[in-house]
Amino acid sequence: MSPLGDPADTGRSLLTPVVVVSRMTSLIGKRTWAIPEGYIPAESTGDEPALESHETVCVLNTTGDDASLEITVYFPDREPAGPYEKTVPAARTRHFRFDEFDDPEPIPRGEPYASVVESDVPVVCQHTRLDSRQAENALLSTIAFPDG
Amino acid sequence: MSPLGDPADTGRSLLTPVVVVSRMTSLIGKRTWAIPEGYIPAESTGDEPALESHETVCVLNTTGDDASLEITVYFPDREPAGPYEKTVPAARTRHFRFDEFDDPEPIPRGEPYASVVESDVPVVCQHTRLDSRQAENALLSTIAFPDG
Amino acid sequence: MSPLGDPADTGRSLLTPVVVVSRMTSLIGKRTWAIPEGYIPAESTGDEPALESHETVCVLNTTGDDASLEITVYFPDREPAGPYEKTVPAARTRHFRFDEFDDPEPIPRGEPYASVVESDVPVVCQHTRLDSRQAENALLSTIAFPDG
Amino acid sequence: MSPLGDPADTGRSLLTPVVVVSRMTSLIGKRTWAIPEGYIPAESTGDEPALESHETVCVLNTTGDDASLEITVYFPDREPAGPYEKTVPAARTRHFRFDEFDDPEPIPRGEPYASVVESDVPVVCQHTRLDSRQAENALLSTIAFPDG
Repeated sequence: MSPLGDPADTGRSLLTPVVVVSRMTSLIGKRTWAIPEGYIPAESTGDEPALESHETVCVLNTTGDDASLEITVYFPDREPAGPYEKTVPAARTRHFRFDEFDDPEPIPRGEPYASVVESDVPVVCQHTRLDSRQAENALLSTIAFPDG
Repeated sequence: MSPLGDPADTGRSLLTPVVVVSRMTSLIGKRTWAIPEGYIPAESTGDEPALESHETVCVLNTTGDDASLEITVYFPDREPAGPYEKTVPAARTRHFRFDEFDDPEPIPRGEPYASVVESDVPVVCQHTRLDSRQAENALLSTIAFPDG
Repeated sequence: MSPLGDPADTGRSLLTPVVVVSRMTSLIGKRTWAIPEGYIPAESTGDEPALESHETVCVLNTTGDDASLEITVYFPDREPAGPYEKTVPAARTRHFRFDEFDDPEPIPRGEPYASVVESDVPVVCQHTRLDSRQAENALLSTIAFPDG
Repeated sequence: MSPLGDPADTGRSLLTPVVVVSRMTSLIGKRTWAIPEGYIPAESTGDEPALESHETVCVLNTTGDDASLEITVYFPDREPAGPYEKTVPAARTRHFRFDEFDDPEPIPRGEPYASVVESDVPVVCQHTRLDSRQAENALLSTIAFPDG
């Protein structure tokens, strides 16, 4: 039985591609995640773009439905920006770089921010920063804070 | 309806600035957070102040009310210090540097400590250290431990 | 009484080796863990294999039964891979390197992925990356996200 | 009212030192914590002992009672070691270095391990590694996994 389909859907076509993963639960995660830390260093050292200073929110969607995300970005001294709309297809992961956000507006480098990810299906979020301001890179990462 | 206001406040002025963020819950987080790790390296390398060795507690307040924080700092061999009083305005994030705490007393560099953040509204806390004692910086970060 | 044995097994041989650990609970953890971040850098600097760029999932099994794991790996644009089958014996820890996964298929370097660990007994999972693309290494780590 | 004393103890001496921390809850944390990742690098660069490669478990005890800890260390291929007995006094934090554990036995460098911390009062635990095998140090940290 596929973790990606409805377990009750016993009448589906035998031609449907099926990923067989035993014991898999189909709804891992939560719909709301918060990341209080946010800072895209303004300088970088190293080959672009993989070694450019950047932050990502890694989103894992193990469900059988595409996840529609709305990401809101908070600042110290002005109104929040967003929502930034993203999609993570069913049974996929997407790692979004905050420095590539541009709609409705880019996130300024060198300034603190925070973010909240909201999804219409359960997902799991992890926050990572690569800091290459100096000659050697530095990394941080944490599972985001789940709500609800 | 704004996620930042009281959902029951249907009589407020139409002139109030409104941030429309769909599906946003207005109470993400907890009121108490603990950070057992704490250590502000005594030495630094690099441009001050961004690359000075430091630790921060990043606080995200997604509610419609200002968050009044009281931070208590614990040590290995003496009474706790504090409370350090901080504010995170409604729908804002603030990243507080422990090396800038001075009221009621500064936190000594080069000594272990821990901290507890208490807020009168739900917030989310993340702990980060930049260590620039050597020529290249190092980073660590984790969502703090929520209580209650 | 050993935390590693069946508390109801009062008839076992007195010759059985017993680890006496007071207050030990025998079922720490969860059966499902998610790690949204995953990226094995394609380049490395330093002595192999300890300083080769790699990611690990560290699994702790405090129970008295061997843990049979099934790890599923998710990608941005193709079907998940797996399950990768691993074992963590009773009262042991195993730190699995994703770059050594090969059955049913290796995980490509330099591409984002995510993973889900499922166990038939409760375990605890932590995710760590060593990035040695530049002359000095960088580290990240987080407890994985537990489900259920 | 002190968070460190019994709220019902209204008859205590007025000469008792009191730390006044408003809104402080006195029982933050859990009694069991797991850390699946563990590895003390065998080599170091930099001034000893602060920059020697090491791992710590940082324990915060916000209660009014001393915390008696029992730490059990797990390995890939042999029986667990311990318990290592430690104390964190009331309203104190202690950051224990695994490379300084010696009773009942030292923890070998350069080999994977994991650990479980058990306390007789609620505490909060965080795991940190400083890796100075190369010229520049690297850091990782995460809140440990709480049980129960």
